[in-house]
Amino acid sequence: MKASIISIGDELLFGQTLDTNAHWISQKLSQLGIDVFQRFTIHDLADEIKNTLDKALDNTDLVIISGGLGPTQDDKTKSTLAGYFNVKLVLNEEVLRHINKLFSGHKAGDLERNKQQAMLPGNCTVIPNDLGTAPGMWFDIEHQCVVSVPGVPIEMKGMMNNTILPRIKTHFALPVLIHFYLMTAAVGESQIAEMLQDFEKSLPGYIKLAYLPGQGMVKLRLTAKGEHKIPLLHAVLPYFERMKSMLGHIVYSENQDDRLEHVIIRKLKKSGNSLATAESCTGGTIAKKITSVPGSSAVFKGSIVAYANEIKIALLGVPELLLKTKGAVSKEVVIAMAKGIIRQMHSDFAIAVTGIAGPGGGSKKKPVGTVWIAVANKQEVHSKQLSLPGKRTQIIEWTSVIALEMLRRFFMKHFV
Amino acid sequence: MKASIISIGDELLFGQTLDTNAHWISQKLSQLGIDVFQRFTIHDLADEIKNTLDKALDNTDLVIISGGLGPTQDDKTKSTLAGYFNVKLVLNEEVLRHINKLFSGHKAGDLERNKQQAMLPGNCTVIPNDLGTAPGMWFDIEHQCVVSVPGVPIEMKGMMNNTILPRIKTHFALPVLIHFYLMTAAVGESQIAEMLQDFEKSLPGYIKLAYLPGQGMVKLRLTAKGEHKIPLLHAVLPYFERMKSMLGHIVYSENQDDRLEHVIIRKLKKSGNSLATAESCTGGTIAKKITSVPGSSAVFKGSIVAYANEIKIALLGVPELLLKTKGAVSKEVVIAMAKGIIRQMHSDFAIAVTGIAGPGGGSKKKPVGTVWIAVANKQEVHSKQLSLPGKRTQIIEWTSVIALEMLRRFFMKHFV
Repeated sequence: MKASIISIGDELLFGQTLDTNAHWISQKLSQLGIDVFQRFTIHDLADEIKNTLDKALDNTDLVIISGGLGPTQDDKTKSTLAGYFNVKLVLNEEVLRHINKLFSGHKAGDLERNKQQAMLPGNCTVIPNDLGTAPGMWFDIEHQCVVSVPGVPIEMKGMMNNTILPRIKTHFALPVLIHFYLMTAAVGESQIAEMLQDFEKSLPGYIKLAYLPGQGMVKLRLTAKGEHKIPLLHAVLPYFERMKSMLGHIVYSENQDDRLEHVIIRKLKKSGNSLATAESCTGGTIAKKITSVPGSSAVFKGSIVAYANEIKIALLGVPELLLKTKGAVSKEVVIAMAKGIIRQMHSDFAIAVTGIAGPGGGSKKKPVGTVWIAVANKQEVHSKQLSLPGKRTQIIEWTSVIALEMLRRFFMKHFV
Repeated sequence: MKASIISIGDELLFGQTLDTNAHWISQKLSQLGIDVFQRFTIHDLADEIKNTLDKALDNTDLVIISGGLGPTQDDKTKSTLAGYFNVKLVLNEEVLRHINKLFSGHKAGDLERNKQQAMLPGNCTVIPNDLGTAPGMWFDIEHQCVVSVPGVPIEMKGMMNNTILPRIKTHFALPVLIHFYLMTAAVGESQIAEMLQDFEKSLPGYIKLAYLPGQGMVKLRLTAKGEHKIPLLHAVLPYFERMKSMLGHIVYSENQDDRLEHVIIRKLKKSGNSLATAESCTGGTIAKKITSVPGSSAVFKGSIVAYANEIKIALLGVPELLLKTKGAVSKEVVIAMAKGIIRQMHSDFAIAVTGIAGPGGGSKKKPVGTVWIAVANKQEVHSKQLSLPGKRTQIIEWTSVIALEMLRRFFMKHFV
């Protein structure tokens, strides 16, 4: 089965917005065993939308259109689709209620505009949009389907996950595809590729290994394709187990949605322990990652972002002399920060970070990218120096991931 | 003048590689005033390449093909192009010398493969590739041009910058394009659209307004297209000024690369003031945003992420009684947090935030999305309650942006 993706938006063609939507949708469809046969990126012009839809329906079964559904005047997708299918725009009362509800509490908004947003082509099935005003649309045309979603990534993803992907699964006869994942963090892709070189060569044709690198992490996906689920599972499981044992302790999870912080929060909850962080160069990024996990408040006490040295002294109890003699980016200071935050927040565990994220602040002895990380509990401190390449945002991101991974491995010593 | 971009590669359609090439090329062409009219992403299949080239040449003057030029078997672009133009592949001695030179020093490589790489369609102008083995190709077809570059980003960019873009500039008669930007935050796209409704209708055909929404912000772009720069500037400036005055104080910058935190850091530096934050539900996100700006260490003292109530009491000096009688998410507590962080960090300004980001923790009286924000200096505190829709990550992101915008407006009262 083949699919096309059409991305609509001048901002994409101007090169102002990177099209992560088409990329994300490609991933999701590929995981269902659908061949994303082609992608188009076009202007928000009626003729272009119609012509491209013609081309897409010419050789694919499913067309997903992303973008062009906002309330502003440059969005023409909806009326164009109605014209394309030769139907009228009809007011959908349920959608109107949803939009009015979204605006209630605030100034009621422009009622006429809300109504316009609730006008939909008469032949479509409405895809609810919990997070925004523009609903999605599903069109059945004999054996083919056209789906239209808004371009705002979080709205598009919610609608795809909640409604569209499940519907695609039941609507089309898809091959059986089994995916297994191994999540690793703070280890480079090429290092992992070296560990798995022979394993990859040993794979039969129906099993494929993919490296999906993210920020500071690599997701490994083993995919088996076949016709019947149970025999396919029996065939692929030994390969997965072998791969897992080859990678050993660098694997932090088998769940592809797990980030390091999820694993850490779960381990803390299970063991009844708490965590606090003391951050200098990461500026709150580690705390942000941890608190992005729902329920983290049960185990996360908080963080002191000690950007200025005076704060390291006053709030973390780092001795002034240490800062003067060893410098803010040093083993002694990061250890003092870790001990200080445990003392201040009465936490069981701590992460502390200090470093030079750049572009300024580097020296010959301590160039930009020099970072010290400590992880600790009340009895013990582990510390580590890093020399990271790259720019400010990369250094901050890598430091945060490596610090979390250090804590995870510290846990492995102290409880299962 | 119109251009198409064709990206070739299974890894793109599988969703394994994000297509940053097409994005980068779009930017570069747009900056030259070329309308990137459409982009295609296709498999490395001869028929697909031919069909797509037909479509692209049907309505654009310039076609840039990225990818499909490597030495491996799945790269069919070169022979397909020769077939398309009905010419033979001819050995290019200069290219062969370059490839052999690249491999010298290493194991000499496969000489036969090198020779294959140096076989090029007889009708093309060779684009040198300093960083790799696969040369680029420029084809003139009457008034149209087709350019083929390898998919490796660093090689593609080098060839575009050194040879292809300069050649495009002299080869085509390009229009003049002028962009103006207005940046807004914490105001919805539809609210801005309402403010600009009449203005947008008044625009002449050669001036276009685009809404480019990001997380919690909307970038507005006014684009004028013409033949001569000076008269075009004279024509578009009054529109831009009118638009700016209509939006008034909701505009935080005219620089499209500015985020709110850039503006705040600049204002703090200029006035010699410092900032600290006290964050509960945002969990360090505001501090992270601020410290993402290079040089923020000069004005940002730090943050206390007071996730647990005990930390609000111990480190921010929030009275325990207040937490008990008013609750952690209340006007009184957020004001106490703001005053507490100024006291603790001796900062001139402060942001404090407390709220319920969900999914747990909500009640009938204070549902998920209830947030209190305070901005303060040593003399004065402003506070505000929000009722935000959406999920945890959105609530955290919106709260952070609204808090920064509140601080910017607070600044407007206290210094220009």
